Amino acid sequence: MTAYAKMTPQERREEYAALAKKFEDLKALGLKLNMARGKPGKAQLDMVSDIFTLMQKPEDYVSDGIDVRNYGETAGLPAAKRLFAEILDCKPEQVFAGGNSSLQLMYDTISKAYTHGLLHSQRPWCREEKVKWLCPAPGYDRHFKVTESFGFELITIPMTEEGPDMDAVEEAVKDSAVKGIWCVPKYSNPEGVIYSEKTIRRMAALKPAAPDFTIMWDNAYCIHELEGDYVPFPDIISLCAEAGNPDMVFEFASTSKVTLPGSGISCFATSEANLAYMTKLLSIQVISFDKVNQQRHVLYLKDKAHTLELMKRHAAVLAPKFRAVLDTLDREVAPTETASWRHPKGGYFISLNAMPGTAKRTLALCKEAGVTMTGAGATFPYGKDPQDSNIRIAPSLPPVEELQQAAEVFCTCLKMAALEKLGV
Amino acid sequence: MTAYAKMTPQERREEYAALAKKFEDLKALGLKLNMARGKPGKAQLDMVSDIFTLMQKPEDYVSDGIDVRNYGETAGLPAAKRLFAEILDCKPEQVFAGGNSSLQLMYDTISKAYTHGLLHSQRPWCREEKVKWLCPAPGYDRHFKVTESFGFELITIPMTEEGPDMDAVEEAVKDSAVKGIWCVPKYSNPEGVIYSEKTIRRMAALKPAAPDFTIMWDNAYCIHELEGDYVPFPDIISLCAEAGNPDMVFEFASTSKVTLPGSGISCFATSEANLAYMTKLLSIQVISFDKVNQQRHVLYLKDKAHTLELMKRHAAVLAPKFRAVLDTLDREVAPTETASWRHPKGGYFISLNAMPGTAKRTLALCKEAGVTMTGAGATFPYGKDPQDSNIRIAPSLPPVEELQQAAEVFCTCLKMAALEKLGV
Repeated sequence: MTAYAKMTPQERREEYAALAKKFEDLKALGLKLNMARGKPGKAQLDMVSDIFTLMQKPEDYVSDGIDVRNYGETAGLPAAKRLFAEILDCKPEQVFAGGNSSLQLMYDTISKAYTHGLLHSQRPWCREEKVKWLCPAPGYDRHFKVTESFGFELITIPMTEEGPDMDAVEEAVKDSAVKGIWCVPKYSNPEGVIYSEKTIRRMAALKPAAPDFTIMWDNAYCIHELEGDYVPFPDIISLCAEAGNPDMVFEFASTSKVTLPGSGISCFATSEANLAYMTKLLSIQVISFDKVNQQRHVLYLKDKAHTLELMKRHAAVLAPKFRAVLDTLDREVAPTETASWRHPKGGYFISLNAMPGTAKRTLALCKEAGVTMTGAGATFPYGKDPQDSNIRIAPSLPPVEELQQAAEVFCTCLKMAALEKLGV
Repeated sequence: MTAYAKMTPQERREEYAALAKKFEDLKALGLKLNMARGKPGKAQLDMVSDIFTLMQKPEDYVSDGIDVRNYGETAGLPAAKRLFAEILDCKPEQVFAGGNSSLQLMYDTISKAYTHGLLHSQRPWCREEKVKWLCPAPGYDRHFKVTESFGFELITIPMTEEGPDMDAVEEAVKDSAVKGIWCVPKYSNPEGVIYSEKTIRRMAALKPAAPDFTIMWDNAYCIHELEGDYVPFPDIISLCAEAGNPDMVFEFASTSKVTLPGSGISCFATSEANLAYMTKLLSIQVISFDKVNQQRHVLYLKDKAHTLELMKRHAAVLAPKFRAVLDTLDREVAPTETASWRHPKGGYFISLNAMPGTAKRTLALCKEAGVTMTGAGATFPYGKDPQDSNIRIAPSLPPVEELQQAAEVFCTCLKMAALEKLGV
């Protein structure tokens, strides 16, 4: 196979005809496959459903003397705080243990900044002339949408091999209208990049013009290795404190991809001053999050070591799925030199850069053949990829055999779109 | 016993000396009792803890074809919507089934009105010159605090035997800055008043100047009878629609006092147009609420009839607690003619009006004797009871024997405060 760009027009026409035939054959299968969202597959759900055998003995209802079944403890069970603190390598007194959704805690943080202001805000952000927000891209569409929904101006920060381009970040924060940045520091969504220690230290040492500049540190994949052992990761909270920015970061995590999506527990971790401020605001909103589910998780996960063992079992289910997609890409697309992609070591996604101007077309073809993908552009602010190139592949949901078919469809569509772009 | 007001100064001094002696004796017992919040007692929690035996068979994980363990269904499981719709006598398609806290759903509604506006808002409420809010009082402190926290001006509406004074409400809504009203329509917090059908119809037929005026209809005690059978209650959503105000009401309910406080499920019910609008806004904030817990509740509660049977078992635990307090009040305080109170037929509270100017003093004495009560004034906007008279008694948490002691302490303190006011 020759690189498409080096083919003669005649070769390209022949290649396209062969692909179009294959596309019709695949379409005829009437597939209905989904690689759109980072949903765990049924095997992973079944693996952890023994969590429901807990909470049946009277002694299970009591944690540190608290009856977990009654109202109270807005900031969460002490035992849940300890569990998250051990996993994130911070202090229990820096942790707020919440409900089933870390996205909700992130939204609440932004929403309260907007309605009431954060600890160091001069005024609620709804009273600011303009609020700007830094979005390392490709990034997570749901992050971008939260800040977009409050009318913030989203500023794209390029991603590098080591995380966000820190030169660009340091320059941007000189503008006092820039109030924060979204980060997925370990196995970034979608690229699977682990921020380098240098990037993290520069992030912690930022000197933003805005006194209430906030790093939204979504450590969604903090223990989500796909292969090998747990990779230790710096504690951003103490690094910020060391750099003289104790209140500049909110870290988020959840068990959505440890136990059950939508029925796990979540947390934010931050300075004790931030925690006291936010707990006061949150106590107007909720009497307590679901402490029974917090206790269920404490009993099930036990501690970090035990949780990491479970994560290896998740990896054993996930790794073959990632391999199925990556092997197909390596075999079918690499020789054509029409796209590049990463081989992530953790997280839930494969990020692929198609030939500029072909991402939307590729996904339209996929849809025609019954394969649903994350919308093209979703990984960029406002859902607009200026290059129309980045595609997020989520291999976690379908079983391996379906995934192989889906990857086959995807590669066929990707190559057809590339040939159309080159001219056939 | 003579009414205190008719006693001679000498008789009052003797009575006060006897009470002061009793007070010291009670204090010496070193009590630590709590009648502050509407928390269910341990017997109620134990009664429903068999809910944890559910969700263990693979077929339990699937509801209407949805794997409840995975992401998805922002507006909740169809089965949970059906359950709430049957209980509230509305339509399933009018129901959003949420997480463990109806307070959170109420807060979210107000917060989204503030940040984004409601369906018929001309602008987000944070862009309004001024927002005013109607607070029938005595009422629920957490309601008042939500609207206070957004800087709304709280306007007190007097409560009557039939609910909020509708003459006052109809007059108030002529002001376009008045954006809404808090209501607890059945067994109101704290008075236990059931809004009359006339009140409800006048509420549904309001013609407010503000196009986005909103009735926050917190049906917290919709099936919470203390004695006798379930009392049917009109569906506010269809009444509003009939009166030409289809989008004027959000109704709220939860299972916090049906199954477990803080680990139940909640909902809001509203017009389909409102539901679509709010679901779109909420989908930025959360992927899904805890559907496993929704399914657990569907399996446990089954339907309205089965839920009402459970509520009778709760009533059997609660009724003796209410009787213990009411009997003590009737015996100890009634003859002194220093306070008045209601004998509620449902809900979680007894509302008492002490002699004006004595509520704070009464509760300070209670605290001294080891009995914690809801703060004086809490039932009024800004926590300020202009009469310093209303006291909310929450008899649900302590066991009956402790409650009898607590009631004894309370009556002693109430009478001492009255005598101090009258002059001793």
